[in-house]
Amino acid sequence: MSVEISTLDPQVIERGKQFFNSITGEAPSVFNKGWWTGKVMDWAMQNEDFKVQMFRFVDVLPYLNTSESLSRHIEEYFAADDSNIPDVLKWGATKTGFGGGLVAKVLNKTIRSNIEGMARQFIIGQKSKEAVKGIRKLRKDGFAFVLDLLGEATVSQEEALAYRDGYLEVLDAIEKEYKKWDGLDTGGELDWGHAPKINVAVKPSAFYSQSKPVDLEGTVEGMIESIEPIYKKVMSMGGFMCIDMEALKYKEPTVEMYKRLRKKYSDYPHLGIVFQAYLKSVDDDVSSMIDWAKKENLPISIRLVKGAYWDYETVIAKQNDWPVPVWTHKPESDMAFERVSKLIMENHEICHYACASHNIRSIASVMEVAKALNVPDEKYEFQVLYGMAEPVRKGLRNVAKRVRLYCPYGDLIPGMAYLVRRLLENTANESFLKQTFADEADISTLLENPELTYKKLLESKPAPKADNRVRLKGVDGELEPFNNFPPSDFTIKEERDAFPESMSKIRKDFGQRYPLYIGGQEIITDDTLDSYNPADPSEIIGTVCQAGVAEVDKAVAVAKDAYLDWRNVEPRERAQYLLKAAQYCKDNINDLSAMQVLEVGKQWDQAQGDVAEAIDFLEYYAREMIRLGDPKRMGNSPGEYSQYFYQGKGVAAVIAPWNFPLAISVGMVSAAIVSGCSVVYKPAGISSAVGYGLVEMFKAAGLPDGVFNYTPGRGSVMGDHLVDHPDVSVIAFTGSMEVGLRIQERAAKVHPGQQHCKKVIAEMGGKNGIIIDDDADLDEAVLGVLYAAFGFQGQKCSACSRVIVVDSIYDRFTHRLKEAAESVKLGPAEDPSNYMGPVVDKAACQNVLNYCKIAEEEGKVLVKREAPLEYREKSGCYTPMLIVEGITRDHRIAQEEVFGPVLSVMRAKDFKEAIDIANSTRFALTGAVYSRSPKHLDLATREFRVGNLYLNKPSVGALVERHAFGGFKMSGVGSKAGGPDYLLQFMDPRLVCENTMRRGFAPISEDDDWVA
Amino acid sequence: MSVEISTLDPQVIERGKQFFNSITGEAPSVFNKGWWTGKVMDWAMQNEDFKVQMFRFVDVLPYLNTSESLSRHIEEYFAADDSNIPDVLKWGATKTGFGGGLVAKVLNKTIRSNIEGMARQFIIGQKSKEAVKGIRKLRKDGFAFVLDLLGEATVSQEEALAYRDGYLEVLDAIEKEYKKWDGLDTGGELDWGHAPKINVAVKPSAFYSQSKPVDLEGTVEGMIESIEPIYKKVMSMGGFMCIDMEALKYKEPTVEMYKRLRKKYSDYPHLGIVFQAYLKSVDDDVSSMIDWAKKENLPISIRLVKGAYWDYETVIAKQNDWPVPVWTHKPESDMAFERVSKLIMENHEICHYACASHNIRSIASVMEVAKALNVPDEKYEFQVLYGMAEPVRKGLRNVAKRVRLYCPYGDLIPGMAYLVRRLLENTANESFLKQTFADEADISTLLENPELTYKKLLESKPAPKADNRVRLKGVDGELEPFNNFPPSDFTIKEERDAFPESMSKIRKDFGQRYPLYIGGQEIITDDTLDSYNPADPSEIIGTVCQAGVAEVDKAVAVAKDAYLDWRNVEPRERAQYLLKAAQYCKDNINDLSAMQVLEVGKQWDQAQGDVAEAIDFLEYYAREMIRLGDPKRMGNSPGEYSQYFYQGKGVAAVIAPWNFPLAISVGMVSAAIVSGCSVVYKPAGISSAVGYGLVEMFKAAGLPDGVFNYTPGRGSVMGDHLVDHPDVSVIAFTGSMEVGLRIQERAAKVHPGQQHCKKVIAEMGGKNGIIIDDDADLDEAVLGVLYAAFGFQGQKCSACSRVIVVDSIYDRFTHRLKEAAESVKLGPAEDPSNYMGPVVDKAACQNVLNYCKIAEEEGKVLVKREAPLEYREKSGCYTPMLIVEGITRDHRIAQEEVFGPVLSVMRAKDFKEAIDIANSTRFALTGAVYSRSPKHLDLATREFRVGNLYLNKPSVGALVERHAFGGFKMSGVGSKAGGPDYLLQFMDPRLVCENTMRRGFAPISEDDDWVA
Repeated sequence: MSVEISTLDPQVIERGKQFFNSITGEAPSVFNKGWWTGKVMDWAMQNEDFKVQMFRFVDVLPYLNTSESLSRHIEEYFAADDSNIPDVLKWGATKTGFGGGLVAKVLNKTIRSNIEGMARQFIIGQKSKEAVKGIRKLRKDGFAFVLDLLGEATVSQEEALAYRDGYLEVLDAIEKEYKKWDGLDTGGELDWGHAPKINVAVKPSAFYSQSKPVDLEGTVEGMIESIEPIYKKVMSMGGFMCIDMEALKYKEPTVEMYKRLRKKYSDYPHLGIVFQAYLKSVDDDVSSMIDWAKKENLPISIRLVKGAYWDYETVIAKQNDWPVPVWTHKPESDMAFERVSKLIMENHEICHYACASHNIRSIASVMEVAKALNVPDEKYEFQVLYGMAEPVRKGLRNVAKRVRLYCPYGDLIPGMAYLVRRLLENTANESFLKQTFADEADISTLLENPELTYKKLLESKPAPKADNRVRLKGVDGELEPFNNFPPSDFTIKEERDAFPESMSKIRKDFGQRYPLYIGGQEIITDDTLDSYNPADPSEIIGTVCQAGVAEVDKAVAVAKDAYLDWRNVEPRERAQYLLKAAQYCKDNINDLSAMQVLEVGKQWDQAQGDVAEAIDFLEYYAREMIRLGDPKRMGNSPGEYSQYFYQGKGVAAVIAPWNFPLAISVGMVSAAIVSGCSVVYKPAGISSAVGYGLVEMFKAAGLPDGVFNYTPGRGSVMGDHLVDHPDVSVIAFTGSMEVGLRIQERAAKVHPGQQHCKKVIAEMGGKNGIIIDDDADLDEAVLGVLYAAFGFQGQKCSACSRVIVVDSIYDRFTHRLKEAAESVKLGPAEDPSNYMGPVVDKAACQNVLNYCKIAEEEGKVLVKREAPLEYREKSGCYTPMLIVEGITRDHRIAQEEVFGPVLSVMRAKDFKEAIDIANSTRFALTGAVYSRSPKHLDLATREFRVGNLYLNKPSVGALVERHAFGGFKMSGVGSKAGGPDYLLQFMDPRLVCENTMRRGFAPISEDDDWVA
Repeated sequence: MSVEISTLDPQVIERGKQFFNSITGEAPSVFNKGWWTGKVMDWAMQNEDFKVQMFRFVDVLPYLNTSESLSRHIEEYFAADDSNIPDVLKWGATKTGFGGGLVAKVLNKTIRSNIEGMARQFIIGQKSKEAVKGIRKLRKDGFAFVLDLLGEATVSQEEALAYRDGYLEVLDAIEKEYKKWDGLDTGGELDWGHAPKINVAVKPSAFYSQSKPVDLEGTVEGMIESIEPIYKKVMSMGGFMCIDMEALKYKEPTVEMYKRLRKKYSDYPHLGIVFQAYLKSVDDDVSSMIDWAKKENLPISIRLVKGAYWDYETVIAKQNDWPVPVWTHKPESDMAFERVSKLIMENHEICHYACASHNIRSIASVMEVAKALNVPDEKYEFQVLYGMAEPVRKGLRNVAKRVRLYCPYGDLIPGMAYLVRRLLENTANESFLKQTFADEADISTLLENPELTYKKLLESKPAPKADNRVRLKGVDGELEPFNNFPPSDFTIKEERDAFPESMSKIRKDFGQRYPLYIGGQEIITDDTLDSYNPADPSEIIGTVCQAGVAEVDKAVAVAKDAYLDWRNVEPRERAQYLLKAAQYCKDNINDLSAMQVLEVGKQWDQAQGDVAEAIDFLEYYAREMIRLGDPKRMGNSPGEYSQYFYQGKGVAAVIAPWNFPLAISVGMVSAAIVSGCSVVYKPAGISSAVGYGLVEMFKAAGLPDGVFNYTPGRGSVMGDHLVDHPDVSVIAFTGSMEVGLRIQERAAKVHPGQQHCKKVIAEMGGKNGIIIDDDADLDEAVLGVLYAAFGFQGQKCSACSRVIVVDSIYDRFTHRLKEAAESVKLGPAEDPSNYMGPVVDKAACQNVLNYCKIAEEEGKVLVKREAPLEYREKSGCYTPMLIVEGITRDHRIAQEEVFGPVLSVMRAKDFKEAIDIANSTRFALTGAVYSRSPKHLDLATREFRVGNLYLNKPSVGALVERHAFGGFKMSGVGSKAGGPDYLLQFMDPRLVCENTMRRGFAPISEDDDWVA
């Protein structure tokens, strides 16, 4: 039987009108302006800035444990401009004379209790007892329930287990009395049809701290391990368990887990899953699920929701330059909801349906479709959120009976996060509830078929705002504005499969000899060096020819010669070679990434990130050179024409590190090349195979011979010689402070025959600190610190090696950090489930072990984990993951760069002292702050003096342009890589001024300052 | 009797109409499209680009002596885009198959002869014989004449005398026959009334090569010396001499000369002068003259013209930011012409009037006013240009009889320059002739009262084009866009008088002790050094305290402390201090300039230029910091906000030179300060009194104590110490290469306790060349080279020390250069008539003398001039002005910086070799090219690789912003001073990235990349 919603429309609208009639005069309590919540909501809807501040304040509120802290935050969030708290916030506080200390305290108390009251409105109880009492009452009113335990983000196994235990506890509480409950419709064991009285919802990611899309199997197994006991308990009580759907990145493991549990307990039918209509993939998601059920012949239950992470999904997609996975117009979600509801109900024989929406149009449509399809009553039900949309639930109860309330319970800390989501939902302009009950929109508009609404919307929509970023003219027309190359999206199977494929492909070529590449010629040397896999040193990546003094002389001579022509190539054309090289990298990104996993031990995502960064450098510097390449007219005097433009300085020696083996090499090399310099490139010995990628890339780009020359070599043999060479004009170096300072000192000496003062661009070390403020969101801070300290084994100049924790949050933070660190997996980067692997080579290993010793002597071990024995037995370059506390600024471990997985925890009495400690090294590279105090964030912006400071983000992962990278003090003498001033360092500015007046006559141009 | 032109308007228009009727069907030959000239004019009027190229080509034509050169230029000027010569130019050449060598030759020949023919149309003859023949013929046709000898610019005494002799020669020729001529109207001795048959016009500036406004007396005397013999000859023949008016800068000496001659030969009435109606000052100019005549009771004669240098005067005024001295709307000049004509004729009893206009409305107005005022016929006459406006002259002859033709005669080289002016006049949109005869405008429009035309023009005029330069927000509202501070305008008496006044004022304070200034405290030291006047070492400017190591330590400590606060001051506020300091300089510019004249021996204009440059640095860097100071958002990802901004590096040591003692000091210091650095400033010992000006300036600006510290000292005592100091983060140095390299080398060594890698900004030496191409405009090239080589005694890093001359023009150029050099005056800078003075001190003197010896050994002396004995006897630091030729690139004098008045002349076989020679040093600072070959100018733009290249301008005199200054190779490691990248060197970029997403919710801003 085929049913078309459009033909049902008159009935749908009629039913909707009846629905509205049945609730005339009712309004959800949240919009009741007679009360604090309603007033605040009203104010938030009128004032976007207040809304942002209010919701952020709600978020931080549970962390404000002292009166001082509460007071300060109220001031910072709401009184920034005129030191007046908005009246709406004061509502309910004593009416007389605000401002004094005592009165302020009253105010603070009122605000806190008002907000907590607001939260409680959406939460059925904080403890299991309360929750049980609440649902008992609901059932009395004729509503079924589904219970959901609120939780913070799960950063460790300990937290996952605690969360599981929370469910078991509430189930125990219910167990004691549920048998006394009468079925709602039936009065029997079930509420209606085959709906059990007990119903719980679980959010899978909260049950496993190591969930990640790249590790599908591990994630599914990890989730099941914690959830299965709950399900067993539920089954033992004859209850229903619904697996909620969270952010998109968990969709695939969630579906997979559902299938496994459903199949494992195939005789037990009461297991549900949720799909989100706002996903563009929802039609496929649901049909696949139904197909699976049919194939397996297993009845299933689907709750369909619109989806609660729209902002998050959109922001993440935009930040990563991934396709936006959600519908970008609200009516599209509504359309999908109706469409997929119909699909589910068409399959009601295999699939029970829970319609979860507050939208009366959606509900009416479901009811009419159900009717048209003759769906039996017990095959579908309605769900609404506890504390929301009371008129809707009442109306539903009137017309549809089978109404279930989604009931969160739990502590106020996670409750506040839940509250923020609910507030957002109620205040969004496109919210049906807001339109209905706050904006009092016309009923016929509200009941309109969303297809029609969508059509009207598209028609009335203003032309999309022009992207007003400047578009540069390239060789072949206009270039797209710069965008960072997207990171891998491991929710996509093809992207997960690419790594193993590429690794096995490139492994076939392992052991080959890499020649030098000078002036377009491959050159073989007797001296060679092997590059090996740090996880298994017996695996030789390749044998790399080593340049000596003679080869360096040759390379410089070739480069000097090439420079004379190259500097004359138009900037736009030089840029074109970079764009071609970028294309080569895009075409070969998997192989290039895989090589890094094996040669230097990068985790998959980080290896891909390194190649993506290389692409970004190429794309960005190409555009930068075009931008800078057009001569700039100086002044506008008539009779003269002055042009300011740039010329490449000459031969650039690029001395690169191994830790971002492609990205930093490509960054320095491509900057030099596009600026009109020619290059002699010395990759790090450890990563010379990755470095050889540059040869292939520039060959593919067709770069003229001699402009780029590849000369790996032993620093002790040819390093100084290259730096001292009189024909080298630029030295671009990234590496340790010691080597950087040595290069600077040597390069400042002018040698016979030298025609150009050498420019040294040196990016050196760091001793980067992350500050944890007392109001930091620990869900994010713990994971951020862990990643910044141990990602790629801490072998980044941006890595966090000091975490500076404000005293009052010290214990909470360190406990969670320790547990989180204990939860991650250690082992080769090749296996994406591992969080941390071996350091880059044996020498690095020894160096890190030395520092571990120092750290253990100077501080107290908080975490010390070794990689599993099986890996260490292969002589892999493993060092422990080490976290020590009790470190103060005078300790060596607080001052010296380790370049490995060693993290010092330092205690600060307050935020100001934390900044002092953070600044107390010779370095000034990166840093981060986790805080939700606007003033502290401002203070850090000014006073936490490092090149790259991140607020509520880890200190690593700088992206080209967005996070232009580089520091000062002893961290660098260069300008920021991937930033707007970087290329200038490779060029000399020139000015040509022409007197255009001849015989008293000067042509006057448009932009001359001429008489009117 | 009072007459109003407006009431006469009906008669004026009626008379104008009759005038037009009388010439119906006639057209000036120049517009006759049946001929080459007419076609070219027509094309030029339609095509602005062609017009520019055509007029420029006419200008260069006389220099194109070979067929190859002619061919090349035709190609370059006219076939740049599509290698097709416009058809119009080919007219008259053989019609078949252009392109081949032979045919091209024909074409070239045709073009040359056509242009020469065009020139001849405006010139009565090339030789005096021809000229006499021509005027004889004119007289036969009833026209009187005034004879004018064409001339190149006069760059030397030799040329001035030759020019004078040219006049005497033609007068001799006339003398032989003029007695045979009948008076035109009278048939007697005179032509009409009391108008002599012989009439010559002289351009005063051509008679004295050293004319300059600053030296009024010398200029007048110099002019009279050459002109008086001509006048005597004219008087002896009973003739009339008219003193022409040229560019505004010669107005005052011209008037003065007229008065002196008129008074000296008071009995002889036939001396006339010209005034220009386009000058806004014309009413005052003419009334003053008439008042003078009345007072002296001396009859005078005035020719009134509209004025021929409108473009020039406007361009110069705009370039110098002086008020535009000419009317900017054509009808205003016409109004002034009628108004001043009336004024003259109202005074006809004392003043004879020559009305020189081709504008029939102007003529008609003069005729009607004359009639209304009852001006006797013999008291006014009409003048028109030979070869122009034939119908007008014919009409005038018909109605007014007394018509005199202005007849240039002379060589085609100056003739071409004259031709360009005439062509411009004929093709200007507002030209009456063009409107009348080419555009065929309506007669009533042409005859409209210019007051009415002006009114209509103002009404119909579009709103003035908005100045779309970015306006920055300062502390007190918007700042005006940057403009260079104007140079002194020495045509203004007050500006001339200011220097002697200021010099005598500051002399009263000479001999005072200058303390150090550290942390706002004056500090006296035992060690002191005297600063003296290089023109008279016995004159002590002041006694300067000298900092030692202890004072340096103290200054650095104070500066380090001040830095910690200063870096936090908002960029906009820091900028405000610079603007205040600039105001101090403006308020005290005369004293500050005068100090330089006496302490370092700068010529007035250059001393003022130095202070003006200091002001420019302050104003420019203030704006630059505001521009750079606003944090820049990086990327536009939603959910994150990245800001890129800058922070001052720390303590800056500024080590300054003496040659631009205020400008370069202020430039480096103010850049450091505004960037957020604190400064320890070491002025050069020689110019420490000027350097003390910075103390006063920053005191006046209210700069916080310790941000600027003044520590003069002996380099040998405290120089290295300052450079090595671990707390110095930036060293800004300008001076010699030797010292600059030493600083770089020392600064690269990191010392214990040092927290910041030192940044060295070193501007070093130059060995700057000027290339003279074979088609260079020698009028400009000779003066340009002379000024670049010997201005301020060649003591500029930008000074020209090599002039590289293309072989084929070598003799002409060097001859004129030699003669020009021999013509200038040598002596103290205090006397503005002197072109060159003493070098800066005794040590410099010795150094230059050593190089003179080398130069004389290596080359052949072309010019060697000593200052007059009287100056040398005072022990003034005089060295010879030396020009040697025969220098090749291997000579020491071609490679080493002299920093004094020594110029090497080098011969190049062609332009390409000239560029090779120019580039053949270790330096790359400035350079210049004099050429009129578009291709060679392009080639130089690319291949003459210096920091500042000037085309058809001297290599010196860089202005802030317009000529952002600085070089590369061994000339500098800094970016360009006064340029857009300069401040970056004093700052470290910082990036702060905030993750703005909390709980999945991010505020979305306008410029986010958000979903549509």
